[in-house]
Amino acid sequence: MTTRMIILNGGSSSGKSGIVRCLQAVLPDLWLTFGCDSFVEALPAKTQGSDGGITFAADGGVSVGADFMRLQAAWTEGVVAMARAGARIVIDDVFLGGAASQRRWRGHLGDLDVLWVGVRCESAVAAGREIARGDRARGMAAAQADLVHEGVRYDLEVDTTHSESLLCARTIAAHVG
Amino acid sequence: MTTRMIILNGGSSSGKSGIVRCLQAVLPDLWLTFGCDSFVEALPAKTQGSDGGITFAADGGVSVGADFMRLQAAWTEGVVAMARAGARIVIDDVFLGGAASQRRWRGHLGDLDVLWVGVRCESAVAAGREIARGDRARGMAAAQADLVHEGVRYDLEVDTTHSESLLCARTIAAHVG
Amino acid sequence: MTTRMIILNGGSSSGKSGIVRCLQAVLPDLWLTFGCDSFVEALPAKTQGSDGGITFAADGGVSVGADFMRLQAAWTEGVVAMARAGARIVIDDVFLGGAASQRRWRGHLGDLDVLWVGVRCESAVAAGREIARGDRARGMAAAQADLVHEGVRYDLEVDTTHSESLLCARTIAAHVG
Amino acid sequence: MTTRMIILNGGSSSGKSGIVRCLQAVLPDLWLTFGCDSFVEALPAKTQGSDGGITFAADGGVSVGADFMRLQAAWTEGVVAMARAGARIVIDDVFLGGAASQRRWRGHLGDLDVLWVGVRCESAVAAGREIARGDRARGMAAAQADLVHEGVRYDLEVDTTHSESLLCARTIAAHVG
Repeated sequence: MTTRMIILNGGSSSGKSGIVRCLQAVLPDLWLTFGCDSFVEALPAKTQGSDGGITFAADGGVSVGADFMRLQAAWTEGVVAMARAGARIVIDDVFLGGAASQRRWRGHLGDLDVLWVGVRCESAVAAGREIARGDRARGMAAAQADLVHEGVRYDLEVDTTHSESLLCARTIAAHVG
Repeated sequence: MTTRMIILNGGSSSGKSGIVRCLQAVLPDLWLTFGCDSFVEALPAKTQGSDGGITFAADGGVSVGADFMRLQAAWTEGVVAMARAGARIVIDDVFLGGAASQRRWRGHLGDLDVLWVGVRCESAVAAGREIARGDRARGMAAAQADLVHEGVRYDLEVDTTHSESLLCARTIAAHVG
Repeated sequence: MTTRMIILNGGSSSGKSGIVRCLQAVLPDLWLTFGCDSFVEALPAKTQGSDGGITFAADGGVSVGADFMRLQAAWTEGVVAMARAGARIVIDDVFLGGAASQRRWRGHLGDLDVLWVGVRCESAVAAGREIARGDRARGMAAAQADLVHEGVRYDLEVDTTHSESLLCARTIAAHVG
Repeated sequence: MTTRMIILNGGSSSGKSGIVRCLQAVLPDLWLTFGCDSFVEALPAKTQGSDGGITFAADGGVSVGADFMRLQAAWTEGVVAMARAGARIVIDDVFLGGAASQRRWRGHLGDLDVLWVGVRCESAVAAGREIARGDRARGMAAAQADLVHEGVRYDLEVDTTHSESLLCARTIAAHVG
């Protein structure tokens, strides 16, 4: 079986983006990457802070509305279509709904061969990295650290608390079929 | 008929990105946007400068190889699938192959209702804006200004040489069904 | 006489940054550039939204406090010292206080040979470009378009409403001693 | 005695920028930050790749010429003047010349009270982080990891190989007078 998609799930500042770039470097094939950040960049600016859109609160809270979810569904359908059309894809996502977010993905994936990866990071460490990166609202890392993993089932979990991105990527790469 | 996709084609520094942001602001519905820049960001870093990937020469020339084209085909398939799934989409592209690039798109679009828009800008003006933006190799604007429009058929053309992005966007928006 | 510093003043989205990059390209000597944006990047993140710091309101308003002004004074002193030490410098500033902001600069400049340049842009056009760039709060351009020029005296004014950045830069460069 | 300036020296991808942002967060006073990256951004684009300017080689090597050094001297003079004018400043630098770079700084500092901090990171770990960040030429981290510390004397050294940025920042902050 050939892994068509790797879906990484983890809280803000848990180190997903770094792992993605390392995965793209160490995997022998060429993998495309998409995720919640690139999806938000594709949205109109007016979606931010609107009722139906996505709102980033000053305390790091994130809430999404009906328009966001409708467009996210179409986006997910398209990303899965890319994989069916032959591209191998790494997804970098934040399951704000925990198990419900995974069910949402499963509803689009059909029988596509996916590797589910949990990216853990101790809440206090992620909160420190949030300060160090300087481009996220303080509090987002702590709010999401455990929440996003609730009820989610993985093929594999990595923990960036004490492991470098490159090492985590190599561990994941070893599970890619 | 409902326009599902707007495809903007124009050379580097012709003003496509500004028009896209204005379109997202003035169109009453929420439109997602993707394009050659977001596709290149989705590629592994090692694709840049590789034989099969994409190479940006110091003189502004851009050449792409077999890997790039294979992944681009899958990406295009997916973006079209997003539109079929209900998202309205603005594409910001550079038809390096002119008419051949349009044929490539048509091969993926099927009967989807698309508005084809040419974004023109006088070569010398685009070259000046290339200097003003400061993040593109000198020469790319001039090299692409005419090349990308060769043999391409549009529903509508706008020219940013003397028209502001917002005005161009309003002109395009008036043609959206 | 040798011009040691060019100080550009204009509202948000009036086109100052583009003119600066063109000036750096067309001036035969190598000119360093600094401005209100690079100063804000040098501040601690916690300065944003704090009482003494700088606050960007949702409607595009900008207000600054005592800490900001104290650090800005030291920064200005340092930038002038760079010019005295032999670097030629282009400043990209927004005189939120109009004539008072110019007096503030004069208090640091001593007898340094400065070229004062007003960068004008019609309010409606700047507001449209604000939408096109997509990274500024809506309303900032309109709020600042006239305000920043009140009572300020220039050696030269350029207007980006109908003139390209490169042309404005060439006009300015012709006045550099 | 009051520390007026903290000068951090370390190789590319050793973690200096993260430490700077954490220092700005944990230090009770407001500290401005400047460094080799912000200096390079202040230079004209044409300085990159020119004989007298700065050249980033594909293998991660960095070389600088006479124009770069002349402007860097003026810039350094100005940053020191900011500190003398009352701003507290954190510098994020890469001593490509090792001890000679430190002597260069000392020539500008006079009797200013400075805290010299070495930022270490094992070469292999820094090289992995270089892949994870994805915006630096491969090889720069390894080339600079030891080189920049040769002959340099510090008040304090931190090592990011196994310590988080925030912890390193707290260690440094405890030495600030």
